[in-house]
Amino acid sequence: MDKSKSLPIVLMTDFGPQSPYVGQMKLVIERLAPGTPVIDLAHDIPAQNISAGCLVLSGSAKYVPLPCVLCAVVDPGVGSQRAVLAARYADGLVALAPDNGLIGALTAGREHVQLVTVTQRAHFLQDVSPVFHGRDIFAPVAAKLANGLALSELGEDLDPKQCQPIPWPMPKSDGNTTSGQIIYIDHFGNLITNLGDAELSRFNDPEVILNARSMPLSDHYAAVGEGQVVALRGSYEHVEIAVRNGSAADELGAKVGDRVELRPS
Amino acid sequence: MDKSKSLPIVLMTDFGPQSPYVGQMKLVIERLAPGTPVIDLAHDIPAQNISAGCLVLSGSAKYVPLPCVLCAVVDPGVGSQRAVLAARYADGLVALAPDNGLIGALTAGREHVQLVTVTQRAHFLQDVSPVFHGRDIFAPVAAKLANGLALSELGEDLDPKQCQPIPWPMPKSDGNTTSGQIIYIDHFGNLITNLGDAELSRFNDPEVILNARSMPLSDHYAAVGEGQVVALRGSYEHVEIAVRNGSAADELGAKVGDRVELRPS
Amino acid sequence: MDKSKSLPIVLMTDFGPQSPYVGQMKLVIERLAPGTPVIDLAHDIPAQNISAGCLVLSGSAKYVPLPCVLCAVVDPGVGSQRAVLAARYADGLVALAPDNGLIGALTAGREHVQLVTVTQRAHFLQDVSPVFHGRDIFAPVAAKLANGLALSELGEDLDPKQCQPIPWPMPKSDGNTTSGQIIYIDHFGNLITNLGDAELSRFNDPEVILNARSMPLSDHYAAVGEGQVVALRGSYEHVEIAVRNGSAADELGAKVGDRVELRPS
Repeated sequence: MDKSKSLPIVLMTDFGPQSPYVGQMKLVIERLAPGTPVIDLAHDIPAQNISAGCLVLSGSAKYVPLPCVLCAVVDPGVGSQRAVLAARYADGLVALAPDNGLIGALTAGREHVQLVTVTQRAHFLQDVSPVFHGRDIFAPVAAKLANGLALSELGEDLDPKQCQPIPWPMPKSDGNTTSGQIIYIDHFGNLITNLGDAELSRFNDPEVILNARSMPLSDHYAAVGEGQVVALRGSYEHVEIAVRNGSAADELGAKVGDRVELRPS
Repeated sequence: MDKSKSLPIVLMTDFGPQSPYVGQMKLVIERLAPGTPVIDLAHDIPAQNISAGCLVLSGSAKYVPLPCVLCAVVDPGVGSQRAVLAARYADGLVALAPDNGLIGALTAGREHVQLVTVTQRAHFLQDVSPVFHGRDIFAPVAAKLANGLALSELGEDLDPKQCQPIPWPMPKSDGNTTSGQIIYIDHFGNLITNLGDAELSRFNDPEVILNARSMPLSDHYAAVGEGQVVALRGSYEHVEIAVRNGSAADELGAKVGDRVELRPS
Repeated sequence: MDKSKSLPIVLMTDFGPQSPYVGQMKLVIERLAPGTPVIDLAHDIPAQNISAGCLVLSGSAKYVPLPCVLCAVVDPGVGSQRAVLAARYADGLVALAPDNGLIGALTAGREHVQLVTVTQRAHFLQDVSPVFHGRDIFAPVAAKLANGLALSELGEDLDPKQCQPIPWPMPKSDGNTTSGQIIYIDHFGNLITNLGDAELSRFNDPEVILNARSMPLSDHYAAVGEGQVVALRGSYEHVEIAVRNGSAADELGAKVGDRVELRPS
């Protein structure tokens, strides 16, 4: 096939920045789809943290170049019986990921065209290591999808309702209070919650509460002084709690799973 | 426009290696300038450390492919009133950065053609998050500059003298002694100072002094034995202090800001 | 030369993920071979750890796209008298690396066509820093090799037997027992040994012993429960010891050099 027509591949893994695991996936892609551009969405997802992977995907889904193949590998179930899914959407996105919730993070607001379970070993590398499906299954299938392979060649159709759901808990509302939790801590030590625009829309001017500390929802980091704690709608478009020019994780001793509440101010 | 004519984009941030923040910038660039090559200069700049960013830029400026767009985002002032600058130089370099000293690190030895303050929101993403100008302002503007957008479309001309200066302190000379400081500690634990060729040119065969430890300026790491301390003109072309096959930062307990002196031997 | 004909460059270093040292190499490559694709195999090799670099190369050698230029820089001898080698193989691989064992890790199963010592300074950058041959020697030579430069232009032929060997110790067999050691600990804390398929072929169903802990060789991580220790043939196709959804390095207190044995079960 004319390589100038292959789709770009957007890659997200928890294999570690510029680790050889990412590198070997790229070698396989270049062998099977020479010249296909590979765009690194993220490789610093905490190891085997599906929630963090879903958060990155849901926050990034509206920025992907179209058409493209998005291949997401955060896969604690590698070697078990978990399925591999490929999905095609009406806007030109093709997604490839293990069946553990990652696909669900891309689906909001998109129209499904086709969803299949990837089972046809003819499209994998000849030897499939039970511990490295990224290189041996995901990379070759992504390359062939970029080259234009039809999903029907990969396996049987699946009802989207049969997919695993997004793994983070849904926020809960009780009277005036909506309760969520920290689901991801980024490079800067910012605390990102599962409280998104759906939850924020219930409030006019909410207070954000973490570990008995209450603060208003600000517009930006500079709303507070150096070293001060600030809550805002962050770059993932979820409520996050930060320390200006510092690490909220370190300074507040907060961790994934800690409860965060929204209340009227 | 013909994508084969778009300029390469050189990208430097403090967003962390292969973090989703870098990834989202690349998604936006690919959407707006499909096929434009993006070259990662560095994404491991210490968070919000403008001095480190300037050092990397000043050491890298002579290696950039020309013409290109260099987009540098180390931006502790995001969300405040700091300006965004775009500069064009006679050699074909176009630079885009917040107004905090980064542009100044690229300018030495280059002839300014034009400098503007970037204010035209029509060239930003439609929704601009107050906390993520990298994705919402810098990435789309860099993509459009790579596509050939004229600087005059972005905002009003600015006198280069109005820019913020490089943020590290200038070395001082007092009698026979020139005093500087550590401004950056690299991946290997090497201690990089603000003492560059301008300062070295005052000496024939200088001693380098850090915390009462004096050593000659050597040509290379192998001038000393394993585990020994060595001072040399390093890969940034500044004086740096290293431990051969070890970490000078760990072994000397040194940190950014520690005083380093040059004296005649 | 027509840039569409330049070979892809596969890059491996110990310079740190998306560090400016990697970035400057890429700037030089883009200047000298505009448009050449650069594929990052790995930049998270532990600093100056030749064993780890060799393990990554030997595990990746069969996946490289052909033809290509593979440039590997793990170079504790930079600035000393160690040689730089360039090798061409019958399958289209061209390799460039310091003479410290890295080339040997690529050679298994390949037919040598030519091996030279790289000495012709006309192909280096004009100023060669004694501490950064990656940027000043390896990057420009790799770019020119990608552009089609003949190895004979770089220096004199060398007998492959004169190269430095792979630096890790060979496993030893004594009666029923084969003894090796941990040579690399990956991003997940998995312990990778020098016990490869040659050693495994001696056993039908081996026990793996580390620090008096004995375990069977399993097929995949999921052979054990969460937090349990498992030995398997890992993604480098060597015996590795892991903790399911955990860090074997942390939980077992293991380090590089620790003895690992294979025995009949």
